[in-house]
Amino acid sequence: MLSIIYLVAIVAEAMSGALAAGRRNMDMFGVAVIAFVTALGGGTVRDMILGHFPIGWTQHPEYIYLVISAGLLTTLVAPHMHHLKRVFLVLDAMGLIAFSLIGCNVAREMDYPFPVIVMSGMITGICGGVVRDVLCNQVPVVFRRELYAVVSLIVCSLFLGLLELGVNVGLSTAIIFGVGLTLRLLAIWQGWKLPTFSFQKRWE
Amino acid sequence: MLSIIYLVAIVAEAMSGALAAGRRNMDMFGVAVIAFVTALGGGTVRDMILGHFPIGWTQHPEYIYLVISAGLLTTLVAPHMHHLKRVFLVLDAMGLIAFSLIGCNVAREMDYPFPVIVMSGMITGICGGVVRDVLCNQVPVVFRRELYAVVSLIVCSLFLGLLELGVNVGLSTAIIFGVGLTLRLLAIWQGWKLPTFSFQKRWE
Amino acid sequence: MLSIIYLVAIVAEAMSGALAAGRRNMDMFGVAVIAFVTALGGGTVRDMILGHFPIGWTQHPEYIYLVISAGLLTTLVAPHMHHLKRVFLVLDAMGLIAFSLIGCNVAREMDYPFPVIVMSGMITGICGGVVRDVLCNQVPVVFRRELYAVVSLIVCSLFLGLLELGVNVGLSTAIIFGVGLTLRLLAIWQGWKLPTFSFQKRWE
Repeated sequence: MLSIIYLVAIVAEAMSGALAAGRRNMDMFGVAVIAFVTALGGGTVRDMILGHFPIGWTQHPEYIYLVISAGLLTTLVAPHMHHLKRVFLVLDAMGLIAFSLIGCNVAREMDYPFPVIVMSGMITGICGGVVRDVLCNQVPVVFRRELYAVVSLIVCSLFLGLLELGVNVGLSTAIIFGVGLTLRLLAIWQGWKLPTFSFQKRWE
Repeated sequence: MLSIIYLVAIVAEAMSGALAAGRRNMDMFGVAVIAFVTALGGGTVRDMILGHFPIGWTQHPEYIYLVISAGLLTTLVAPHMHHLKRVFLVLDAMGLIAFSLIGCNVAREMDYPFPVIVMSGMITGICGGVVRDVLCNQVPVVFRRELYAVVSLIVCSLFLGLLELGVNVGLSTAIIFGVGLTLRLLAIWQGWKLPTFSFQKRWE
Repeated sequence: MLSIIYLVAIVAEAMSGALAAGRRNMDMFGVAVIAFVTALGGGTVRDMILGHFPIGWTQHPEYIYLVISAGLLTTLVAPHMHHLKRVFLVLDAMGLIAFSLIGCNVAREMDYPFPVIVMSGMITGICGGVVRDVLCNQVPVVFRRELYAVVSLIVCSLFLGLLELGVNVGLSTAIIFGVGLTLRLLAIWQGWKLPTFSFQKRWE
């Protein structure tokens, strides 16, 4: 179940990466790279930080083909994709939740302490977009967006809390997707954001 | 002793990271991330390059809480922080030295060759700020600043030299802090910089 | 043979890195760092992704001295280097091919699957320039340049194909350098590029 959502999510992320590459007028190689890092970069950064080798996608070449194909196909269908904007926002939200849970599980199996498990989930959910934005030469959008990283934080904490309480995995997953999706979609709809910190004085 | 300076230093670095995030109008999540990477990113990059797993902070969750708290608190006290500018410059200089020595020690324990030990110290001292600047979408300030990386280079080389000469660790550390602080503060005061290389011709 | 080409290539890459640093008016430390990451960053990223520790250059301190010296020397000879533009393009093309083959070999020895071996070659060939461009705060040029990454892709695939067919290593290497160099130099001469994807609509 989580695997199917994961596959759908990496395709959606790869497509959003391809659009970001298009905004920078990249060539097909650039599109493929940005699609790849957007979809699989979060897990890559997580595995490199946790020392979790071999990294996931190196053992699943089919993921490589999948996200690169999705990225390249996007260049053909892009002019029509705005009709699917809402579908994409839902897929992206589901991806965020799936990535977060998967990231938690990797760190749990390696016996990392609680806050590192939560960070592992958040890194998996968010770092693909961060690397995409760094390669596209812009400040990562996740640092200024409507509630996004916070959804990952809540999802990861809730997941660990439910496991601690002995709730079974199926029920936990259902609860978490319900809570996470509702929160993320409400945030988009209502424009909920974290408070912003502006500091323009040059003091050093 | 080095541990106490280390704790003070990561707090100071987290606070300077939070201010950088404020210059980009980031939200509280962005502030927390930039505070974290500025304070702990240098050690993270070092451990990832040396293959030194698990990475330091993953075994010290208290560091995570400390730097994130420091970053978030900074958003409250920022308007008053320019009064502390000089204190911060001293703390930052002490942090640079402490990070450098710690970085050397990690590589020494792993039996890396001499220049890699020096680079390990420099990476620990400098890479937090580099990752901060990359995430804030600017050319790393350490590549154009008054003597900074060079202080780390001198501190690391001096440290290894004194150890080689059999000077005991306490005395070495005292000498190194004396030399390093003097050099860094003189550099700020006098505006000492390395020569700059400007090359504007497009030749490729 | 490949080792000699490798040494020449890292010097050439270090020099091109130094020029990029000069375009950003960096100081001598910045020049040394950008020279280093341009020359050795590709292999570093590859080793960190494959979990291949210790990373190559940490066991060969002479490479560190070599690329940093090359970078610093470049600041002296830069005004005269445009006479050597063509030489550099050839050295850069040879470096791309040598890096690609070396990257393939590292992944082959670790028994990674076929597409990861190809990616390992491409990462080795390309990521040095990507890290250079990220540190110089620009969109990586390899995402918009005349055929470059594609040359690496073809070289890596051809190399694995020839090995599969049982062609001996010496002959394979000669064929690959012939094909790769011809293709890259033709691409520069004729301005061959991959199709570009432009997408300016803001849809999310």
